[in-house]
Amino acid sequence: MDEFALIEKFFTRETGSRSDVRLGIGDDAAVTVIGAGFDLVIATDTICVDTHFPLNTEAHAVGHRCLAVNLSDLAAMGAEPLWCTLVLSLPSGDPDWLAAFAEGFFELARRFNVALVGGDTVKGPLAITVAVHGRVRSGQYITRSGAGHAQGIYVTCNPGEAAAGLRCMNDADPSATDEHLIGRFLYPDPRVQEGRSLVGLATAMIDISDGLHVDLTRMLQASHMGADLDIAQIPLSSQLLACMTGESALEIALTGGDDYELCFTVPLEREGELQALLPKWNCRPTRIGQTHVSPEIVWIYNGQVYNVPDTSFRHF
Amino acid sequence: MDEFALIEKFFTRETGSRSDVRLGIGDDAAVTVIGAGFDLVIATDTICVDTHFPLNTEAHAVGHRCLAVNLSDLAAMGAEPLWCTLVLSLPSGDPDWLAAFAEGFFELARRFNVALVGGDTVKGPLAITVAVHGRVRSGQYITRSGAGHAQGIYVTCNPGEAAAGLRCMNDADPSATDEHLIGRFLYPDPRVQEGRSLVGLATAMIDISDGLHVDLTRMLQASHMGADLDIAQIPLSSQLLACMTGESALEIALTGGDDYELCFTVPLEREGELQALLPKWNCRPTRIGQTHVSPEIVWIYNGQVYNVPDTSFRHF
Repeated sequence: MDEFALIEKFFTRETGSRSDVRLGIGDDAAVTVIGAGFDLVIATDTICVDTHFPLNTEAHAVGHRCLAVNLSDLAAMGAEPLWCTLVLSLPSGDPDWLAAFAEGFFELARRFNVALVGGDTVKGPLAITVAVHGRVRSGQYITRSGAGHAQGIYVTCNPGEAAAGLRCMNDADPSATDEHLIGRFLYPDPRVQEGRSLVGLATAMIDISDGLHVDLTRMLQASHMGADLDIAQIPLSSQLLACMTGESALEIALTGGDDYELCFTVPLEREGELQALLPKWNCRPTRIGQTHVSPEIVWIYNGQVYNVPDTSFRHF
Repeated sequence: MDEFALIEKFFTRETGSRSDVRLGIGDDAAVTVIGAGFDLVIATDTICVDTHFPLNTEAHAVGHRCLAVNLSDLAAMGAEPLWCTLVLSLPSGDPDWLAAFAEGFFELARRFNVALVGGDTVKGPLAITVAVHGRVRSGQYITRSGAGHAQGIYVTCNPGEAAAGLRCMNDADPSATDEHLIGRFLYPDPRVQEGRSLVGLATAMIDISDGLHVDLTRMLQASHMGADLDIAQIPLSSQLLACMTGESALEIALTGGDDYELCFTVPLEREGELQALLPKWNCRPTRIGQTHVSPEIVWIYNGQVYNVPDTSFRHF
């Protein structure tokens, strides 16, 4: 099957759902309209077999994941998703794999009303690059660098679950707990509504795709803020604690990646406004610390300074 | 060297040249502003070692090429380039290779005032994905599908040179002619100004990256037009004719890819307006045929119907 027949078959069927797409897949480029009063938000992320997901990952989950990790970047800016492009590097044009991949991809795309507007297909090791486009009202995006003094630091849901799930994926007989954790790895849930609802309230935000410790540190450094973090406040899920000791669970919650949760800051005096948003959220945020102008980032565990292991990811 | 140090070193130095970039590399996403009265034009293309360029291609040329092939897609829409993202799949973080790659990339980016606003780096076989963003005045983009009856069909410059250059790349002792052809393969010159100047005049346009015959056929089919093409009019360069027989030169001009020239249609009665644009162009267009409403696409050579060999590219 040639490239054009392949693309036609799996990826051009669902591209016309948004009226702001003037021209979708099928020409040299796509044409869209963003409208007055909005800024455009652009992000791109690649996922590769072995590096970002195991070879035996089901195609449906890969389709979900490649879009989810990108939507998470838009979420972290407080942006509304609009359109995306999809570049597939595939070892073969296996129609069954592509059908399942497309199903996982479009299920998530429909949920957030994201139109696929273009892409490319090349032969190579399995790798998928998505570029996403979103919008925010002019100037209303949330950066990593806006945190101020004496602000609460929050993280959504339960960090560490995805990394624990990845470790369980090769278990011969996974328990219900394992299944929950594996699901958290395979189907990251981008916090799009949550991120958007924080516009005007959160002063800084980042997604913790590389791990809570690494990404929180990035946000604080970009903001030129230090912080006191209370490790005992990190919300460890019962499922995570059921599959490993408390110490290991803590370490994976701090250093494991792939969670695609949001970490953000809100002025302490506005915490009530944050609470008021929660009925519409799919996840709960937990306050794990507080910023301060002195540059030290101090992690405290049971009254002692805790040195977080440096496990930050290096490609080369 | 870790991913972030690598990106920092080579790719964040030149990102702030446009005032419409509110937030460039370094956050979860970039933020840009397109302005009222414009449509956004989005394209993405990947180039992979072996498939799209030989392993021994110099890094500077690869850096040029990955952006050039994408700018060519914007050119084919009549769009003004604005911003791009860059995803690098690299087997290693070789600083010399990256320095030369970045130089080739940014030389072209500066020439067309394109800001790099984001990207990703992964470990894998050498492959580069660029997504480009451009703009046109609302509704003023040129599609493949707008050709009408009795319009002239034009192609820029000399098709076939790039494909011939690729064949010469492994010559032990390349002649000056070979060097010219190799340069045409290594450094495709996206016809950005030419494409933009055709807004309001060309009725349909496509870039001939997959070869003149294949891409012209796509444009005519998208436009629901047939055509009579005069093969003797195809502008074969003296360099192409110096390195192969006339018959081979013709075949490579029709079926060779990688030219990144533009093919477009202009109503016959407006050819004078096209001529008036040419003093500002870097390349000459040649009329090679004429559209008609009957669906046949007929290639004529010396008064005989000529069957173009089907060498269209198949990935799988």
